[in-house]
Amino acid sequence: MPAAATLACSPDDLSAVAKLVGAAAAADVCAAVDVAAAGSPLAAVLRHLTAASAAAKPAAAAAAAEQAHSTDVVFILFSGYLVFLMQPCCDPAHSSAALDLPLFAAPIHTSVGHVATRICVPNAMTKHQAGFACLCAGHVRVKNAGNILMKNVVDCSVGTLAWYLLGNGFAFGQSNGRANPFIGTGNFALNSVSFTGVDGEGYPQFFFHWAFSAAATTIVSGAVAERISFGTYMLYSCFMSSLVYPVVAHWLWTQWGWLSPLAAAPLFGSGAIDFAGGVVVHTVGGAASLIGVYFCGPRVGRFGIDGSPCRGYRENNSNLIVLGTFLLWFGWYGFNPGSALAVSTYSTAALVARTAVTTTIGAGTGGLSAMLIVYALTKKYDVMALCNGVLCGLVAVTPGCGVIDPWAAVIVAVLAAGTFIAVDHLMLKLRLDDVVSAVPMHLGCGALGTLCVGFFARQQYVEEVYGAPGPAVGRRWGVFFGGDGRLLACQVVALLSALCWVSALLVPYFWVARRLNVVRVPVEQEISGLDASKYGVLTTNELPTKPRTKRAGYV
Amino acid sequence: MPAAATLACSPDDLSAVAKLVGAAAAADVCAAVDVAAAGSPLAAVLRHLTAASAAAKPAAAAAAAEQAHSTDVVFILFSGYLVFLMQPCCDPAHSSAALDLPLFAAPIHTSVGHVATRICVPNAMTKHQAGFACLCAGHVRVKNAGNILMKNVVDCSVGTLAWYLLGNGFAFGQSNGRANPFIGTGNFALNSVSFTGVDGEGYPQFFFHWAFSAAATTIVSGAVAERISFGTYMLYSCFMSSLVYPVVAHWLWTQWGWLSPLAAAPLFGSGAIDFAGGVVVHTVGGAASLIGVYFCGPRVGRFGIDGSPCRGYRENNSNLIVLGTFLLWFGWYGFNPGSALAVSTYSTAALVARTAVTTTIGAGTGGLSAMLIVYALTKKYDVMALCNGVLCGLVAVTPGCGVIDPWAAVIVAVLAAGTFIAVDHLMLKLRLDDVVSAVPMHLGCGALGTLCVGFFARQQYVEEVYGAPGPAVGRRWGVFFGGDGRLLACQVVALLSALCWVSALLVPYFWVARRLNVVRVPVEQEISGLDASKYGVLTTNELPTKPRTKRAGYV
Amino acid sequence: MPAAATLACSPDDLSAVAKLVGAAAAADVCAAVDVAAAGSPLAAVLRHLTAASAAAKPAAAAAAAEQAHSTDVVFILFSGYLVFLMQPCCDPAHSSAALDLPLFAAPIHTSVGHVATRICVPNAMTKHQAGFACLCAGHVRVKNAGNILMKNVVDCSVGTLAWYLLGNGFAFGQSNGRANPFIGTGNFALNSVSFTGVDGEGYPQFFFHWAFSAAATTIVSGAVAERISFGTYMLYSCFMSSLVYPVVAHWLWTQWGWLSPLAAAPLFGSGAIDFAGGVVVHTVGGAASLIGVYFCGPRVGRFGIDGSPCRGYRENNSNLIVLGTFLLWFGWYGFNPGSALAVSTYSTAALVARTAVTTTIGAGTGGLSAMLIVYALTKKYDVMALCNGVLCGLVAVTPGCGVIDPWAAVIVAVLAAGTFIAVDHLMLKLRLDDVVSAVPMHLGCGALGTLCVGFFARQQYVEEVYGAPGPAVGRRWGVFFGGDGRLLACQVVALLSALCWVSALLVPYFWVARRLNVVRVPVEQEISGLDASKYGVLTTNELPTKPRTKRAGYV
Repeated sequence: MPAAATLACSPDDLSAVAKLVGAAAAADVCAAVDVAAAGSPLAAVLRHLTAASAAAKPAAAAAAAEQAHSTDVVFILFSGYLVFLMQPCCDPAHSSAALDLPLFAAPIHTSVGHVATRICVPNAMTKHQAGFACLCAGHVRVKNAGNILMKNVVDCSVGTLAWYLLGNGFAFGQSNGRANPFIGTGNFALNSVSFTGVDGEGYPQFFFHWAFSAAATTIVSGAVAERISFGTYMLYSCFMSSLVYPVVAHWLWTQWGWLSPLAAAPLFGSGAIDFAGGVVVHTVGGAASLIGVYFCGPRVGRFGIDGSPCRGYRENNSNLIVLGTFLLWFGWYGFNPGSALAVSTYSTAALVARTAVTTTIGAGTGGLSAMLIVYALTKKYDVMALCNGVLCGLVAVTPGCGVIDPWAAVIVAVLAAGTFIAVDHLMLKLRLDDVVSAVPMHLGCGALGTLCVGFFARQQYVEEVYGAPGPAVGRRWGVFFGGDGRLLACQVVALLSALCWVSALLVPYFWVARRLNVVRVPVEQEISGLDASKYGVLTTNELPTKPRTKRAGYV
Repeated sequence: MPAAATLACSPDDLSAVAKLVGAAAAADVCAAVDVAAAGSPLAAVLRHLTAASAAAKPAAAAAAAEQAHSTDVVFILFSGYLVFLMQPCCDPAHSSAALDLPLFAAPIHTSVGHVATRICVPNAMTKHQAGFACLCAGHVRVKNAGNILMKNVVDCSVGTLAWYLLGNGFAFGQSNGRANPFIGTGNFALNSVSFTGVDGEGYPQFFFHWAFSAAATTIVSGAVAERISFGTYMLYSCFMSSLVYPVVAHWLWTQWGWLSPLAAAPLFGSGAIDFAGGVVVHTVGGAASLIGVYFCGPRVGRFGIDGSPCRGYRENNSNLIVLGTFLLWFGWYGFNPGSALAVSTYSTAALVARTAVTTTIGAGTGGLSAMLIVYALTKKYDVMALCNGVLCGLVAVTPGCGVIDPWAAVIVAVLAAGTFIAVDHLMLKLRLDDVVSAVPMHLGCGALGTLCVGFFARQQYVEEVYGAPGPAVGRRWGVFFGGDGRLLACQVVALLSALCWVSALLVPYFWVARRLNVVRVPVEQEISGLDASKYGVLTTNELPTKPRTKRAGYV
Repeated sequence: MPAAATLACSPDDLSAVAKLVGAAAAADVCAAVDVAAAGSPLAAVLRHLTAASAAAKPAAAAAAAEQAHSTDVVFILFSGYLVFLMQPCCDPAHSSAALDLPLFAAPIHTSVGHVATRICVPNAMTKHQAGFACLCAGHVRVKNAGNILMKNVVDCSVGTLAWYLLGNGFAFGQSNGRANPFIGTGNFALNSVSFTGVDGEGYPQFFFHWAFSAAATTIVSGAVAERISFGTYMLYSCFMSSLVYPVVAHWLWTQWGWLSPLAAAPLFGSGAIDFAGGVVVHTVGGAASLIGVYFCGPRVGRFGIDGSPCRGYRENNSNLIVLGTFLLWFGWYGFNPGSALAVSTYSTAALVARTAVTTTIGAGTGGLSAMLIVYALTKKYDVMALCNGVLCGLVAVTPGCGVIDPWAAVIVAVLAAGTFIAVDHLMLKLRLDDVVSAVPMHLGCGALGTLCVGFFARQQYVEEVYGAPGPAVGRRWGVFFGGDGRLLACQVVALLSALCWVSALLVPYFWVARRLNVVRVPVEQEISGLDASKYGVLTTNELPTKPRTKRAGYV
């Protein structure tokens, strides 16, 4: 308690105040209020109480805001961690392709090491198992694994720098509090994040969106696996993370984006809803995959002379596919609920939990549906169909997971399973060799899910997520809930715009690469496997020890 | 500040108030209080201050409650994510069995592809390694992997829908705020969750308990691996998720359950304590495994003519077992601490952290104990014993992890290691072919841990978790801490009741299936492997391309 | 509302108060304040308001503190979970070495099972692939996997008990609120944690630091893989977790430690900054690895007669390395941001998020740098270099991740990639057989990163993390930001002290073990593989069934 000498009132005033509120409180009053200036001891007390009352509310609000901020940061960061963990298995069939081919693929070398073309062996495997196995055992090595998996790490390594230097700025940057509707214009290399600042563009968002960017970029790696050249892929990865993906994210996920429902004057008075990346991540990644697959062409021997697909290109290691599917499902809980980017109010907590539920139900329903569809077609239970179905369901609920009901997730996932199987079949008919079915998965189901938002989005959820309509801003919802179709129109526009943008950038890129003849590895390298050390990818970490050994090669 | 015209007092009153508290505050007072009605300017100021003071406390409490809710939701959801991640390795030996058999199992085919019965080859592997390897290489394929792993995904897919439509309602549902002591009666398909509501039956709990349900269901898949038919398993999975498991969860984990310590009048004035699922998950899953193992019968060739187990059925891939053990240990941190379902008070935060510690110590001690026991018996360090010991410790501390001390976890885990080894040995003696030791692990150690709660539960913790005793509700604790044995009696009743319930449902189910001859795959299929495409499980996701190829079979 | 009879004032006073504040509030006033004692109704009202106002602030602060505590506990526990998950792949090359050697290693047995010395086969693999494969297939078994992986589980099992009984006490324990600068002196077996207490030594910290301790201990297991005896390793693990590691943690991370910046009078007025374990975990683990590698000696056949390294010892399974790298990267988000140990203020939330960003950028940059350096040296893209580079970047940013800028992380990671490659090369020159490059990784990059803190630490961040300077406590920062070199001096002292301490304990330990001839497994065991059952590690969990079978050996 301050000494009387420092009090802003005379001893008389102090004792008068003390009569009103007691000695201890009187000292506080006199420390804060000048009794003489207040006019009377009573006025001084009342002023003091009024000031304390006025200060208490914002103080409590500030404390609550700090706690809310912390909870949100924990939520965003841990969600980002989960999204990051999706990288190594961003397409489980992808990983599996890398992991099982050396063990289970049809033999493609002659026994003396000459290069041979891979030929259709439709029945050899079943009829001549013993013979096959001998040949196969002769090639037990990691043919393409180093190259394929390397791309995932490269996506994260190159992609991290590209996102840090450029991508984050193009997506979410601003200058002087403004950005144009097409592209972000600031915060490159995080140069406008205050050192210890707490703002919307800060570190947590950077981290979370970095993980998203890496996920979108990685989608392509599986589709063009086993024949794309490493340099072309690395440059693509850089391009994707720094420009292709960020611009679409800017359109849909910032307050300046021309497609965003958060814009001051959103498109058609609604804006397109892409809660967790159905357009930004999956459609963009799927479209890039389609372009890559088209320009790369099919793997050697993938299709026979009559155009029919050859056997042995989808003999996958189902163990790894199952593990990969579970890891992706796990990571999707960072992806979808995490996209709420906040959890610290009743409303956002309910949103996050509901999103987790729709995601779960979408995954389960998708898997069951795909399995049953394939069973109906073939009378076989197919573990690949089950796993792909789970992922289809997850992709398809992604754009709407925050604004649809659990029962709607069931319907969306069933449609997704059918879409996947149909598009996958179509791709083979068109002789497009998509190693891991990335196009039907991400483009097919991503687009389906995006359109479904236009039908199933519930008004209440839309307003909860994007805010109630105001004088300038309308809110629109799904056609099945009485929406007037404006939201659906926005979804269509968003899809088409994303497809145009990706095509406008990547078609020229791959076209030029093909003209320069750098898009594919040489055919002999493709056949002998991308990891053979003479072609450029090592799987050992030892440098040559020239001085002492005088031998060429690696130790 | 509102204009004077909207104030509820005359200009004179306003200036009188301003004399007391200053002009700025006076406007606020006059905006809120009618000075004339208050009787005097002073009374108006005092009323305003009193009202503000009265409002501040609930406002602060509401803000704190909102933050607490958000923290709890983050905690529950992320704990649920961890529990979900346990699925792919819900029994590591399970995964490993699937993963290594094709590579390391004894050869069971003749070289020309005929079907041969699997025979005991006790010494062949060590004596004729080269020969074995050649034969083995001839069968390097994923014999059962597709089928076995598929069950895990099916548990999640089918189980998700079953839990959504029925299970959650039977477990936690109510109608009109009531439910009977035996089974829940509402909220099927989440139909009574308010759209954006915040209540105990809402989305976070649904999600968390869904993950638990899937875990309980999956336990069986490993025990009956390699011979159960897919249809029988799928139906079992559906049955387990929708009725068997939910009813036991209702008994023990809801305020209406007849065994629950949360009930208004708990059994024996105490109720049974099952903090994280020792009865609900492990005893139920283990008992279901025992029933399944009994009715399925052993794999072909598992036991010799003299009843002794044959070699080659437990040659596991220890790499995957170790990885699986770590993933399960990791997931258990969602399971056990997550079962607190709240973390937003000092008391619950301490509970959660203590639970993480007892879980950790149980795991470490269990592993070390099992390794040393096996070393004492065989003079070998056994990596399988170590890993199984870790899981035993985890299972055994599960029912009591929140109400026992770390040192008690040490004792429980040591007992669990011994129990596992004894029961595992007994199972072989009884010629029960439990592929992954699910029965000794989950039933043996789960029951042990449940009983141990009756000895080691500390009064202070019990009251902290389940609430202090009231006029109608008693609280009982462990016998070793002076409890009077009522808790122990409840634990015994809970165990026996769960066993009876599971038996009452699953024994008829499997009995009928066996009578209908659909419980096992045909013997030739079992021997040639469940994944062979002619028997029904594919590992390729390509549909037949009939129109163009005119060939039968898959591409 | 209390009945009038319990009010502390007369009916007259009550009605007088009611005139001032209304009837409802008057009852509250009278329930709390004695009007007669206060002197007047007005004074009573004012006292009541003053008391309420005075109580509101600490009540709000207490509520906010409780929420902050809960958020911190969630953050610490989940960060600890992630750190724990690093165990199974604490060195991915480690896991991979275990996992691929049996499949891909050069053949080292004669075909009839005799023991043969492993010889240099520099060109055999490329020239005679078919022949190699046949031989290799003859040895398709898990040669060392059980033994190597077992160590990781043992680290967790033994380490858990060692940490519980001794380590935690030596590191963070105190007695009577004091501890000496060298070693902790209390809280052994958690004996001074209050049962439900909330204090700095409690359960969350115990759990988090347990995971750190296990990580430090595990580093060594990879370096000395494939030849250290199990007993020697188990004793080492115990020793490391209970004494070696805890003492260094005490020095740097407690308020009593002589090197700690949190000390009352820190070294050189600054103290050494080790934000997330560059000294405590990585330098200690790396130095222990170097000692272990030196005393164990190289594996049989690792170096040729001329001292050049032989081929076939680094043929790794890149799939598992990539998966392991991603899991470690994932776990590092528990390690580095988690080391903030709090997230519940704006300042700590910013710190945590910034740490996640520097960690990410360090990882990405390290990977890219190492790949490009190796490309420059060999014209090959090397997936091992990429993965090792990622880990190097992570290790090197660890000590400073909370106090450096993202751009500084770029520089540190580039230096780390170069350091790793140089030290790795040097180790081979010195014929030190570090199986998984643990020494260049953890000692090399850990020490580099520790020194870099002395150059790159920013004043603002240092003060944010460790507190502003006071009368007795100075704060120093990086030389490049105008610091005066005292921080750099502290970093050097910390490094050297840690090296001396580890050497002082582990050199005698391994020296004695070598004198006793127990440090390595017998040479014939090393060659035939550590898992061969006659040498002591089983990979089956079945006990012998002596009574019935009368056969020796395991079933």
